Amino acid sequence: MKIESVTAVPFRIPYRRTFHMATASMPAADHVLVRVTTDDGLVGVAEAPARPAIYGESQRSIVTAIREWFAPAITGMDAFAVEQLGARLAGAVHNHTAKGAIDIALHDLQGKALGQPCWRLLGAASESVPVASMLSIGPPAAVAEEAGELKRELGIDSFKIKVDGDVAAGVAILAAVRAAVGPTARLYVDANRSMRAEEVLRLAARAADLDLCLIEDPTPLDDVAGRRLLAARLDIPIMADEAATTPGAAARELMGGTARAVSVKTARTGFRDSAKIVGLAQSLNVPTVIGSQGDSAIGTAAALAFGAAFSSTAAQGCELDFFRTLSDDLVTVPPVIRGGRMAVDQQAPGIGVTIDEDKLRHYRVDL
Amino acid sequence: MKIESVTAVPFRIPYRRTFHMATASMPAADHVLVRVTTDDGLVGVAEAPARPAIYGESQRSIVTAIREWFAPAITGMDAFAVEQLGARLAGAVHNHTAKGAIDIALHDLQGKALGQPCWRLLGAASESVPVASMLSIGPPAAVAEEAGELKRELGIDSFKIKVDGDVAAGVAILAAVRAAVGPTARLYVDANRSMRAEEVLRLAARAADLDLCLIEDPTPLDDVAGRRLLAARLDIPIMADEAATTPGAAARELMGGTARAVSVKTARTGFRDSAKIVGLAQSLNVPTVIGSQGDSAIGTAAALAFGAAFSSTAAQGCELDFFRTLSDDLVTVPPVIRGGRMAVDQQAPGIGVTIDEDKLRHYRVDL
Repeated sequence: MKIESVTAVPFRIPYRRTFHMATASMPAADHVLVRVTTDDGLVGVAEAPARPAIYGESQRSIVTAIREWFAPAITGMDAFAVEQLGARLAGAVHNHTAKGAIDIALHDLQGKALGQPCWRLLGAASESVPVASMLSIGPPAAVAEEAGELKRELGIDSFKIKVDGDVAAGVAILAAVRAAVGPTARLYVDANRSMRAEEVLRLAARAADLDLCLIEDPTPLDDVAGRRLLAARLDIPIMADEAATTPGAAARELMGGTARAVSVKTARTGFRDSAKIVGLAQSLNVPTVIGSQGDSAIGTAAALAFGAAFSSTAAQGCELDFFRTLSDDLVTVPPVIRGGRMAVDQQAPGIGVTIDEDKLRHYRVDL
Repeated sequence: MKIESVTAVPFRIPYRRTFHMATASMPAADHVLVRVTTDDGLVGVAEAPARPAIYGESQRSIVTAIREWFAPAITGMDAFAVEQLGARLAGAVHNHTAKGAIDIALHDLQGKALGQPCWRLLGAASESVPVASMLSIGPPAAVAEEAGELKRELGIDSFKIKVDGDVAAGVAILAAVRAAVGPTARLYVDANRSMRAEEVLRLAARAADLDLCLIEDPTPLDDVAGRRLLAARLDIPIMADEAATTPGAAARELMGGTARAVSVKTARTGFRDSAKIVGLAQSLNVPTVIGSQGDSAIGTAAALAFGAAFSSTAAQGCELDFFRTLSDDLVTVPPVIRGGRMAVDQQAPGIGVTIDEDKLRHYRVDL
């Protein structure tokens, strides 16, 4: 099963409403569909999302990296030989989601060649996973209303809440969400690297009765001392996300006293490097959370396949509902959340998606 | 593909000559053949070696653990669901090689079910690997003669040399071997935890012109300070072997300043946990060496499948020649070393061995 061609098709799907977070506002998903075709006619697919504020990649840089560097580098390679990717893609550092998409497309190909879902090939921990929802930034009542709706309509019981240096506003949002979703829901916060460590200490103190289970990326990445202070002082685990975008960084955060949990995003570390991070976290018995890279239905399917395969990632809320903020998607069968969970399709091979070519024609863009 | 039964058959194969190392002398390989059968009639195989001085397991304890604990715990499980093994086998700690054999037998089953060699399913880094040979303890001339023979007859160019607190004897052996195999051969030493850190410093100083590339398990495991001293002082990487028998221990050694390389033995960590250790070492860009657990041809095939699958383990000598010290083996086609390398069988599914039932009848023992 030799790789014959690799294509990168940029597409743009508007969000239902512009999405705001501490570091960026986005009116549409500007992503890239990556397809790898083999000499026996199989096609593996994956999605690379452009996240300039996080990885420095643009839609155009992803397309260029894949067309000009990575496609020639892997053409002729056995699609199973993912251990050769490290050396073959080493000519360009970074380019996280471009590389991640190549890795996932090869795993999708393997599943298709073997007639098996990736979920099963990767370890088959659980047939479904709980879904965690990232709530939009807004006034406390609006955020709480969104959470309540998600709980009532989809059964979601795990929520990520964006906070920043405005401690009073953050505590008010957290209290409103806790009141709306009840005492057993799993609440965690994400500061997107926007807070001072001392602000985080004050937030944690004032939210002490709100049962927060994680604090994600509290400080700017270079404030290592701040994260170490928080990890030592708080009774809420610090979770490294942007601080752990590679397996090596995850090792440094987890072993260096700056984090006690790690977020894993298949869009940026593919399946292979994601498995390294999960393996390390399992070894140390610290939690991993499957995070969202703002994935459409394609990336969601990949994250689900991976998250359900590993015991530690399947054990708690996986951030899989972002696709709902897109006004449309590119797959024939969109993901379904039922009873707060998302289940793998145990029959569909690979990551289990089929591209709707009409929709792709409609949403593709020329660069 | 549900697991229907798990059997453990103890066997004893005499060594060609009694094998000596710092911690034990062994007249015969007292191992256990583990076979996992599924409801569709496939059989996965693996080998569990009893190493009381290292893991505290006896041949009898392995058989008991598998028959009484692990077989019931995994019966009915999907043979792909290796991520469930952690929880299912958690009732008994340790029992490294019993658990490792279960893990490998399931991977062998997966390969057979998919018609693929494990080597390919695990990453397919390289079609063959260089073989490293562990030399027996003995007078310098005898050890050097053995090394020279291995080089002439099999092309082996990577040698592990046993040393202990007798620094002068160790240096004499190292010098004799270096003279016998030439300046480009890869020489590393293994103290099997038998030395004081200060003795290791003296050995390294006196062997400074002998180009040693690794020092394995220099000190007793609890002498963490001694290993940290050595790692900081020497220009030869310290390799953790018995100090890193689990992924968590490997993380502590590599991140804690006590090791700069790690030995991976599939017999004790199966394929799944071995991949965690290799993934961590790759993340940190430190070497991994596929070590020998005194494997017969069965365990050798497993170690080869794993070692050739990962880029970092395939890059340097894998300890795969121990089977030659056994007077016989249990497989229909024994491993072959040619030009100093061992190649995977790219057609044979799973770990690629077929058990010779006549030989098994001959060498099996009743416990």
